[in-house]
Amino acid sequence: MNSLGPGGEFDLIRSFLAAGPPPGAEVVVGSGDDCAVLESGWVVSTDAFLEDVHFRRGWISFDEAGYRAVTAALSDVAAMAARPVGVLVALGLPDPDASRIAEGFRSGIRRACERACCALIGGDLTRSPGPVVVNVVALGRAHRPILRSRARAGDEVWVTGMLGASAAAVRDWKRGREPGPSLRRAFAAPAARLQEARWLAERIRMTALIDLSDGLLGDMSHIAAASGVAIVLDPALIPVAPGAVAVAGSRCDALPLALAGGEDYELAFTARPGSAESVAADFHRRFGASLTRVGLVTGGAGIRLEGDDADEFDPGSPGFNHFRVSRSDATEVGRPDGR
Amino acid sequence: MNSLGPGGEFDLIRSFLAAGPPPGAEVVVGSGDDCAVLESGWVVSTDAFLEDVHFRRGWISFDEAGYRAVTAALSDVAAMAARPVGVLVALGLPDPDASRIAEGFRSGIRRACERACCALIGGDLTRSPGPVVVNVVALGRAHRPILRSRARAGDEVWVTGMLGASAAAVRDWKRGREPGPSLRRAFAAPAARLQEARWLAERIRMTALIDLSDGLLGDMSHIAAASGVAIVLDPALIPVAPGAVAVAGSRCDALPLALAGGEDYELAFTARPGSAESVAADFHRRFGASLTRVGLVTGGAGIRLEGDDADEFDPGSPGFNHFRVSRSDATEVGRPDGR
Repeated sequence: MNSLGPGGEFDLIRSFLAAGPPPGAEVVVGSGDDCAVLESGWVVSTDAFLEDVHFRRGWISFDEAGYRAVTAALSDVAAMAARPVGVLVALGLPDPDASRIAEGFRSGIRRACERACCALIGGDLTRSPGPVVVNVVALGRAHRPILRSRARAGDEVWVTGMLGASAAAVRDWKRGREPGPSLRRAFAAPAARLQEARWLAERIRMTALIDLSDGLLGDMSHIAAASGVAIVLDPALIPVAPGAVAVAGSRCDALPLALAGGEDYELAFTARPGSAESVAADFHRRFGASLTRVGLVTGGAGIRLEGDDADEFDPGSPGFNHFRVSRSDATEVGRPDGR
Repeated sequence: MNSLGPGGEFDLIRSFLAAGPPPGAEVVVGSGDDCAVLESGWVVSTDAFLEDVHFRRGWISFDEAGYRAVTAALSDVAAMAARPVGVLVALGLPDPDASRIAEGFRSGIRRACERACCALIGGDLTRSPGPVVVNVVALGRAHRPILRSRARAGDEVWVTGMLGASAAAVRDWKRGREPGPSLRRAFAAPAARLQEARWLAERIRMTALIDLSDGLLGDMSHIAAASGVAIVLDPALIPVAPGAVAVAGSRCDALPLALAGGEDYELAFTARPGSAESVAADFHRRFGASLTRVGLVTGGAGIRLEGDDADEFDPGSPGFNHFRVSRSDATEVGRPDGR
């Protein structure tokens, strides 16, 4: 319950999740991590995807929306370093075109399941009075799931891949421009880092692991809160996607997309100094993606940016917040100011 | 995949669930039952509840909608004779009043969890562009989950409780009338027959078990399809809720509500002749609810009604289908005729 970072939207989620009796012994980890962890090593998460909030018909096809919804849900399984086993998909469809939309989703769901080697093991189909509504339950299994709560002062903070491309695509669409192929692909055809997470878990001791769905700053604040530590990020170290830099005009202008954009479905983790460094070259050879150190865990609480130009990207500064509109993501709901 | 009855809406679900690779050995039962069954005895289901499809603001409060959504999801756990362990709730909220709606849902979710002795172990909160959207994942555990697929010719068909009250409430609301207290309660405050299902499973060998969410005829057609048998129901034996009879004017006029209404969240099961009879009195003493024999399993396929006036309620007859509009339920989506 204390493992979400600060912020009006997270306060509402926290309050909401405090409903009901505490879980019994069969629930190893309840709410507050990427997945709940059940006895016997099962992990389970649920994610809602709504038309006009998480995607728009003008942006991507229903096939792509189905692929993306399942992949985003499976990213929660990756964030536990668990092996994906199955998904359950509940679909709410507007009456006109229900069959055609279902066919598109079925095709995209199939692609995502095949890519992750997991099965569609249940679902629900219902009429929607308006938007297309998708809910994906992801199930996986892990001998030793990696939580958000074991980061320690002195650990390094690392991320996989490059950040900001998905948010740059959303910004293009919102400005009436069709994003270029690499940005569009980042949004419409992301990959969940499922094999990467297990590969890392077999080689180094990650003390905390999360997937980047809320944006690096938001997700790091979850790790900081869950672990009872502070996290210091150096903006100069953030691996900004080249496509985001090209669209924004400069690395500096693209940095907010990488820091707050979310929906890249890359991984971020903490580990003892030197351990990630020792596998970074192998990781790149194996997966064609970078491992980049972006910061440090310290005593204290919350997230700080330190380094050249860090002040400009202070999450608390007014200049920062407007970049959040580039996210299609969901956590903006319920802010006191109604944004 | 072959365990749903005939009908355009079920065809669409069946086709949809055929996406992706087949499940591996860790999935004991995939789609096609009330829950998927996982190794180690976990059962899991997902259910979507949408404003203006499953409930309306003018009918019930958000507290009641939250209670009802969780209870309906837990009814799937009852339908496996499993013990409820936890739920995950994803909530999509329209911006105006998001906090107030979340508060209502939280209160109702808490009531439902407390009643079932299970915990809220995860969730997701997102903005909705229109309707309130709720998705509930129900998790339970059973040593020997009871499926839909083991009914055999010669078995009897039994139901718990009385049927049709929830559909009668919906019919009243749709006709602009406020339903009376007992009908309203059937819709707004149902109970999942969780203890009842396990009590029965400990005492008699149920060959197939399902909860009545799609209506007795629809749900019996699922058992018939899953078990490869025919089911013959006698309309004269159906336990019609007195409140439904009062509203409809006669038992005969109320019968379609009981046969097709759904959302009563009672249980229906099949068992060898005489076995349910032997525990019916104890069941009534323990739970204050009736156990009623309503039909018979035979060789063949599909559902038949046999007995006095059975022709009038033939599910294939034009006179029957218009009663389905009394359901708030979801399975009407995707019919070829677009209803």
